[in-house]
Amino acid sequence: MRSPNWDSGRLWFPVPNRVCPDELHTRGLPHFDLRHSNLARLLMKSYRKELWFQVPTRRALLNITPQVVQCLRESGIQEGLILVNAMHITASVFINDDESGLHADYESWLEKLAPHEPVSAYRHNETGEDNADAHMKRQIMGREVVVAVTAGKLDFGPWEQIFYGEFDGRRKKRVLVKIIGE
Amino acid sequence: MRSPNWDSGRLWFPVPNRVCPDELHTRGLPHFDLRHSNLARLLMKSYRKELWFQVPTRRALLNITPQVVQCLRESGIQEGLILVNAMHITASVFINDDESGLHADYESWLEKLAPHEPVSAYRHNETGEDNADAHMKRQIMGREVVVAVTAGKLDFGPWEQIFYGEFDGRRKKRVLVKIIGE
Amino acid sequence: MRSPNWDSGRLWFPVPNRVCPDELHTRGLPHFDLRHSNLARLLMKSYRKELWFQVPTRRALLNITPQVVQCLRESGIQEGLILVNAMHITASVFINDDESGLHADYESWLEKLAPHEPVSAYRHNETGEDNADAHMKRQIMGREVVVAVTAGKLDFGPWEQIFYGEFDGRRKKRVLVKIIGE
Repeated sequence: MRSPNWDSGRLWFPVPNRVCPDELHTRGLPHFDLRHSNLARLLMKSYRKELWFQVPTRRALLNITPQVVQCLRESGIQEGLILVNAMHITASVFINDDESGLHADYESWLEKLAPHEPVSAYRHNETGEDNADAHMKRQIMGREVVVAVTAGKLDFGPWEQIFYGEFDGRRKKRVLVKIIGE
Repeated sequence: MRSPNWDSGRLWFPVPNRVCPDELHTRGLPHFDLRHSNLARLLMKSYRKELWFQVPTRRALLNITPQVVQCLRESGIQEGLILVNAMHITASVFINDDESGLHADYESWLEKLAPHEPVSAYRHNETGEDNADAHMKRQIMGREVVVAVTAGKLDFGPWEQIFYGEFDGRRKKRVLVKIIGE
Repeated sequence: MRSPNWDSGRLWFPVPNRVCPDELHTRGLPHFDLRHSNLARLLMKSYRKELWFQVPTRRALLNITPQVVQCLRESGIQEGLILVNAMHITASVFINDDESGLHADYESWLEKLAPHEPVSAYRHNETGEDNADAHMKRQIMGREVVVAVTAGKLDFGPWEQIFYGEFDGRRKKRVLVKIIGE
């Protein structure tokens, strides 16, 4: 196969029938650089980041919206979906209000529905753990949220904020942010 | 750079090495119109719509499946995921059965798990609100559903229906429908 | 329009202004075969499979992670999102720990929050069903999980496992696995 051929400032691609971009690339022939094209903007992109937290208490609710917004900005994704999930099974990611009274209400409500004490009331705690209640609380508050991305922003109602709900803290734990879109 | 060159009815693209479609476009050169091509059909599409509701009572469950189906039809998306979420933090979107007895059971069950009265039992209500219980009920019923889109349809089991769960109504509130796919 | 024209081993595409790949294809002209190109790898793909279960008891928790991993492998998708949802409204899909003591705790905890007996306590059961409690339990444990796909794998924390939660078994029921990505 011949190399690209210039003729009075014009380049012709010496392209055989049904050659694919792969081959063009492999052969070192000129090809469209998709990364900077309009086409590239239409192709699916993905982004991944882990957020790390070490909560000094057993339980806490942290507003992680700023970190998630930062991830979205880094991704450059304009339209798509963002998944934010706890990577641990005694923690939650959920969306609600950033109001300290409400957070105190959640704390006492969850303790009523799935009390930490007595630790011996749970069979899971016979394994040497004392966090069975945290596995229950996490199911009520949920593992993950999926949020729409529109025009490069979290597509939120007026009061929506993303929280990390820690129910068995005092150690390093992670939240995963995965964004797919274009 | 030269302008496109016709020779006996044929056009050659005077394309420099690694020119990208963007540049072709900017320079007014001929390019593939992606919107009407097979390629375009493979590219990710997205769709967004807000559904508005004003429930006259404090609490109600509304079957919003027909509106979501209509959104999917408008989107033209054949394969992908559809996110339906409450944009407010005292409301839910969930999937269950459209049976009035079950809805009455949900009402009394949620009141048992997170009673509206006494309003003063919740610290959140010291802010002047009386809807702390609605923030609890919403966590049990969930903020959102993600549904598969297959062959242009909601990929549902036999009894699945999408509901808007209002727990603090008597005002206008929104549900977001976001669809991504191809 | 003329057919493709070879000149000393080189092919020129006789492409009119704004011709689209569709037309090239229709007219039998050479075009890039997207299926085997780098470009194709960037385009969105989707995968769907139903998993069937028949649990011999009324309630049970099944670890379905191996089946979901197998679906992901079959899909060939490297980056994206995987949705796993119960297609029935008296069952859950959720992520937590594969520890038998914890599963026993979930069983007794869910029975406390939404007891099966007395069956007559639920209006839904006046329809001839006896499974109203299963509709409640499913809301606490959730209908679905969305999991990130990264480098062709479920992007999981150290203990995350996917479970099918059956709350009204003794008949064939389904879980849907839908994957979108690239």
